Amino acid sequence: MSINRILISVAVVLLFSACTGESDDRSPANVILLIGDGMDEQQITMARNYIYGIDGSFEMEKFGYRGAAKVRAVREDNPAIAEYVGDSASGATALATGMLTSKGRIATTAGTDRDIETIVEISQHAGLATALVTTASLTDATPAAFIAHVNARSCQGPDDMAGGSGRLSYMLPCLNDLKRNGGRGSIAEQLVDSNIDLMFGAGMKYFSQAVDSDRGLTVVDSANAQGYRVITKLAELTAPVGKGKVLGLFGPSTLATEWLGENGRTAEPIKPDKQGDPIFPQAFSCVPNSKHEGVPSLALMTKKALTLLNENNSKGFFLMVEGASIDRQAHFRNPCGEIGEVQGFDRAVAVAQAFAQAHPHTLVIVTADHGQAGQIVPLPETYRSLATFYGKPQYSLGFYALLTTQEGGVMAVNYATNSASASSRGVHTGVDVPVFIDGLQAGGLPGLIRQTDIFRLMLDHLGLQDHSN
Amino acid sequence: MSINRILISVAVVLLFSACTGESDDRSPANVILLIGDGMDEQQITMARNYIYGIDGSFEMEKFGYRGAAKVRAVREDNPAIAEYVGDSASGATALATGMLTSKGRIATTAGTDRDIETIVEISQHAGLATALVTTASLTDATPAAFIAHVNARSCQGPDDMAGGSGRLSYMLPCLNDLKRNGGRGSIAEQLVDSNIDLMFGAGMKYFSQAVDSDRGLTVVDSANAQGYRVITKLAELTAPVGKGKVLGLFGPSTLATEWLGENGRTAEPIKPDKQGDPIFPQAFSCVPNSKHEGVPSLALMTKKALTLLNENNSKGFFLMVEGASIDRQAHFRNPCGEIGEVQGFDRAVAVAQAFAQAHPHTLVIVTADHGQAGQIVPLPETYRSLATFYGKPQYSLGFYALLTTQEGGVMAVNYATNSASASSRGVHTGVDVPVFIDGLQAGGLPGLIRQTDIFRLMLDHLGLQDHSN
Repeated sequence: MSINRILISVAVVLLFSACTGESDDRSPANVILLIGDGMDEQQITMARNYIYGIDGSFEMEKFGYRGAAKVRAVREDNPAIAEYVGDSASGATALATGMLTSKGRIATTAGTDRDIETIVEISQHAGLATALVTTASLTDATPAAFIAHVNARSCQGPDDMAGGSGRLSYMLPCLNDLKRNGGRGSIAEQLVDSNIDLMFGAGMKYFSQAVDSDRGLTVVDSANAQGYRVITKLAELTAPVGKGKVLGLFGPSTLATEWLGENGRTAEPIKPDKQGDPIFPQAFSCVPNSKHEGVPSLALMTKKALTLLNENNSKGFFLMVEGASIDRQAHFRNPCGEIGEVQGFDRAVAVAQAFAQAHPHTLVIVTADHGQAGQIVPLPETYRSLATFYGKPQYSLGFYALLTTQEGGVMAVNYATNSASASSRGVHTGVDVPVFIDGLQAGGLPGLIRQTDIFRLMLDHLGLQDHSN
Repeated sequence: MSINRILISVAVVLLFSACTGESDDRSPANVILLIGDGMDEQQITMARNYIYGIDGSFEMEKFGYRGAAKVRAVREDNPAIAEYVGDSASGATALATGMLTSKGRIATTAGTDRDIETIVEISQHAGLATALVTTASLTDATPAAFIAHVNARSCQGPDDMAGGSGRLSYMLPCLNDLKRNGGRGSIAEQLVDSNIDLMFGAGMKYFSQAVDSDRGLTVVDSANAQGYRVITKLAELTAPVGKGKVLGLFGPSTLATEWLGENGRTAEPIKPDKQGDPIFPQAFSCVPNSKHEGVPSLALMTKKALTLLNENNSKGFFLMVEGASIDRQAHFRNPCGEIGEVQGFDRAVAVAQAFAQAHPHTLVIVTADHGQAGQIVPLPETYRSLATFYGKPQYSLGFYALLTTQEGGVMAVNYATNSASASSRGVHTGVDVPVFIDGLQAGGLPGLIRQTDIFRLMLDHLGLQDHSN
């Protein structure tokens, strides 16, 4: 880290400290970090247009501070060189550790594969309670980077450590991390070995694998042996769960989204007719996803986590909440999936904000790990008028959808960052991501920060020191 | 306008008033509004990555307030219905008048074609000085919407009023506006009839046309007759220009950009080879544009305008400064053009900010009129690794460029909102645009506002009333 960067970081923290206006009472300091995966300004605007129209806004947008965070990864083959488009692994590592790394890495250094201490670990050492909540598998890159250390995000369960031919170049084998090789094990094993107080999300397909050091035991068995109560059903989450550590696994992998398109529709490539003129798809609306029934919402998981964390809260807590499927549905070019997930994420933000209002030493930060592909583009009539003017067909490249919004307009959404029609392969963008912070007084924090500054803001609020960096 | 919107607007203004911390001295209140045309978060990130890398930021990003503004147009055939992607005409009209309109309209109402009073007109009625500065023709949509009233942005000069076959649907004839039909005339005529104190930009091709009410006179002749000193050369701008109104026309139409790509390169479609594998273009850098020599920079025009406005400034002034070619170069899928123009625009912002620091009742607002197409996307190696994984070619759709940044990285930029290769026809996006405000104390202004709120903030700062809306 350059001197410049350190100085800027220190200045940010000092400015921030000067503005938090903390009083002297002894109630503990808490941090709630909410990450909308892939939730950049385009995705927020799209969701807001659909749900609220011109006069509304999301709860996160009512926070006192709105700024932008620079997203950055570095190259694995030369960490001194920037990579301008990151992924959830590099983005979450920046937020969780204050250090830049290469794509695919989970709280380890680019090139040198050194473990980097995370805010969850620092919090644990200081006796704070900790919790992770997500709509994805808990072994997914974003939650993983808050506690696990591994060179490849794909090493989610013990059976996933070997990599394999045809794998993405940044999803490498993790054989050094196998427990039988003296490592910390897969991400699932590291999670249940972590002593985090609460983990709510999905990922049974990884946690049900046998641990590599004892093939007779699954990771769930290991969790039980280490004092976790493992719950799997919505009813178990809403019921009193008692004291002690809880691992909530509410599905085999990513939870069902809240919404989908009418008749399952998503964005489609625009095909030309025989004259070469584009055939634009018909408009559709978003509808509730019946598969989401019986699935705990992100807001519900967040509320339960806060209730449990707040019982006997003496030293404060750190809670990370991820709305994972904003990104995932953007990869699928599924605007209704995205929009419903932004709404679900914002409801979790509202839960966090209500808690913060009742517990004033609670800092709530909402941000994203990286940008996504979706763009709001013109309607067919605009392209048709351009075609008339220029005398040749005009249309948006990529995958295009027309949504009938709740205020009665029609919004066109386009995804064009990858040619492949394979369902999960739209790709990220490198745009700055928004940052919303509640509880900041005055304008002490600059409007442009880095993702790594968020790590320092959180540590500072908790009164903790970063020893590793 | 709904009651809700009025209440929100009033609240915004009250919050803002409470936070400006104005003192009681009698120095006049001034407003400098700087519009980066098409300058959304993607375009800013792209330019910042190229110029500054991870540790830098633009001057505008150092302002005390950074927020987002909702962009909205309405349908011409039913103004109650939203249009989610606007243009410079609807965006500038929102900023200049506080009213939403349809694409292509210049300070007139959608559907009903009623003139809407602009902040320049309101300022003039109150005796304030006014000025417009742009890198485009002064008759272009953005400056035009601050003073002219016409149903179609294309009616720039007297010869452009008839529309024509094959025109874009929102660029209609303006025959009712012909002077001989009792109208206000073309945009060029309305500008020289406006009594605006200073206008610096381009557009001689429109101003040299004969006025329609007297074919023996050009619009320039009319300007001279109405007391404007017309200047056309850089040296005339840097020399003392004396007192009185000045019309600076430094080129026939849009001024040459500051930068271009090495060997004139711009983004290119990715073509497949015989095996169907994509051939990605080679990386290039940005270089100064020799055609920009002898052209006044936006910063210089802004500085001169401020110097002149500040002479005998008794009642305050309103100055609009537009960085027009950020948008224009994005239409051309020319990332170097865009990046150089963002830098040039930011230098004008720095000039405005320096003035504000010396003249503390000066409010500086920086924003954009609408979003643009450019996105920062992954490098070829990422697409190649996806192709290996999925067993088929993968690449970004659209027009793709690889830039070697000044910090030594490689950044990929993609433009995919329109299929046409015609040079000016990438199209806008509907994303929220950033807003930077200097001189705001404390966090009184919400992080999310509407473009029309900016009109009210400016009027409020100037102590003026909006009578027309």
